[in-house]
Amino acid sequence: MNIAIDVMGGDYAPEAVVDGILLAISNLAQEETILAVGPADTINTLLADRGYTGSQIRVINADQVIEMGEHPTRALSQKPNSSIGVGFALLKEGKADIFASAGNTGAMMVGSLFSVKTIEGVQRPAIAGFIPQTDGTHSVMLDIGANADCKPEMLEQWAVLGSVYASATRGIASPRVGLLNIGEEEQKGSILALATHALLKANDKLNFVGNLEGKDVFRGKADVIVTDGFTGNIVLKMGESIYNIMKEQGMVNEFVDRTNYENYGGSPIIGINGNVIIAHGASSPTAIMNMIKLCQNIVKSEVAKKIKAAFENN
Amino acid sequence: MNIAIDVMGGDYAPEAVVDGILLAISNLAQEETILAVGPADTINTLLADRGYTGSQIRVINADQVIEMGEHPTRALSQKPNSSIGVGFALLKEGKADIFASAGNTGAMMVGSLFSVKTIEGVQRPAIAGFIPQTDGTHSVMLDIGANADCKPEMLEQWAVLGSVYASATRGIASPRVGLLNIGEEEQKGSILALATHALLKANDKLNFVGNLEGKDVFRGKADVIVTDGFTGNIVLKMGESIYNIMKEQGMVNEFVDRTNYENYGGSPIIGINGNVIIAHGASSPTAIMNMIKLCQNIVKSEVAKKIKAAFENN
Repeated sequence: MNIAIDVMGGDYAPEAVVDGILLAISNLAQEETILAVGPADTINTLLADRGYTGSQIRVINADQVIEMGEHPTRALSQKPNSSIGVGFALLKEGKADIFASAGNTGAMMVGSLFSVKTIEGVQRPAIAGFIPQTDGTHSVMLDIGANADCKPEMLEQWAVLGSVYASATRGIASPRVGLLNIGEEEQKGSILALATHALLKANDKLNFVGNLEGKDVFRGKADVIVTDGFTGNIVLKMGESIYNIMKEQGMVNEFVDRTNYENYGGSPIIGINGNVIIAHGASSPTAIMNMIKLCQNIVKSEVAKKIKAAFENN
Repeated sequence: MNIAIDVMGGDYAPEAVVDGILLAISNLAQEETILAVGPADTINTLLADRGYTGSQIRVINADQVIEMGEHPTRALSQKPNSSIGVGFALLKEGKADIFASAGNTGAMMVGSLFSVKTIEGVQRPAIAGFIPQTDGTHSVMLDIGANADCKPEMLEQWAVLGSVYASATRGIASPRVGLLNIGEEEQKGSILALATHALLKANDKLNFVGNLEGKDVFRGKADVIVTDGFTGNIVLKMGESIYNIMKEQGMVNEFVDRTNYENYGGSPIIGINGNVIIAHGASSPTAIMNMIKLCQNIVKSEVAKKIKAAFENN
């Protein structure tokens, strides 16, 4: 297994990424390799400074960097030798099984669409986020921000994609799908939520458990939470803010700790022909370490392959 | 000041409402009266059972009850002598300065539109909710559910209405208005959020501080949070759920306690020619007591009058 990591991605790169990779090394099986993508000199110096002499990190040179504020499409075409550009080339050529970055989210999304491309039949890929549940599990929520304006058919597809993801990564036979909405009753909601509810209810491939309200987000009522990318982004970031607020007040327990995004390591892009992870811009070494664990789990679970199969059988 | 209370509204009515009124009595000034609207025999019995012999509660008979699940418009026309119907009649005739209920939200909204009516020039009234802030204050957020599908012009008006509300009730000279969105930058967001951002920025009557992300909801960045009723409802209910989750885990501190909806007592309907409060369906006596405090504050602040004046001068 080859896991490509963008060493230049994130607010604390390259140091935090190198430190995170080194934290993850002990969890790697012998046949697992990290492809550390970025300026070779910089990475080699950082690894040497930290006394690394192993063979499970392979440095892949990429001289350019796409900054956080850059326009995704323009940056990717003007900087083919950027760490993001090279990472996607590795993924496309099959030299990497997964590519992960804490860098420019837009560039990661555009890179996915241009390199491995959207699965045929999928209207729009989504970004999936993890929501801690009070029963000790976590739910996968999608979309969390790739698509601010949505159609009901997009949400229905994400329900299918999310179900395959939950099933592949967590072994749930028939994941419960909930629709984020403003009332429990079927006849409540926005035009989008009402139309989506009808589609989900009629889709016999889904285990649709109905609407979830805001109060249900953490309550273990669904394994997959479906929503538009506007609502999903706000819910995810609001949920993550609980950790910082409670930490400032000295109020961290097991549940609060699980609202810390560092524990999830990133958000998979779902609906493309490959495995791609976008990590939080402020990723610490711990977050990067968990990003690599997430990569291992996703590659082992063969998520992208199973999602593709689900659509081919449609 | 006459405060009309629907004694039959809420999951625990009439007992919880009568108990809440009795808790509030000691906070009333001599010239303040509670109009307890509902079946006179029932209310008088409950008051007698609790040993009440004062004169600040006036029982106003209303024989019918609109249940939680009833269709608002139909129920109001078929049950003119319901507690909600009689409450709105009192408000319309000027016999009550404010009407509050923990009953059928839809009926409270429809009753407002039919009795005191929308302020001329306001496209759609909104329901406002209170969001605790980590700096010890609270923000007013609107809409929280009356309008699931919105136009930018509606959100712009709510920014004005919310500013007048924050100014009248909290004495803030120039309330900071934030737009709930999925990025800090001006060019981020849904079609609705982008268009609303432009309107808010161009409106020189507003102190617009820009976009708020989900992580900013509790962070004291705005006195008024503007959003569509779909997002606002989910954010409000998710915020309220923090209290129950933390309470179960024995983790209540000052901030967590302020996420308990009981402390706010209800949500004002903003943009109508009168003062109306909708309280949580599960309101306890404490919640009803705080609902009455909110009523006193709103009447004293002359919110509806000031909002009307703000639109007349537009």
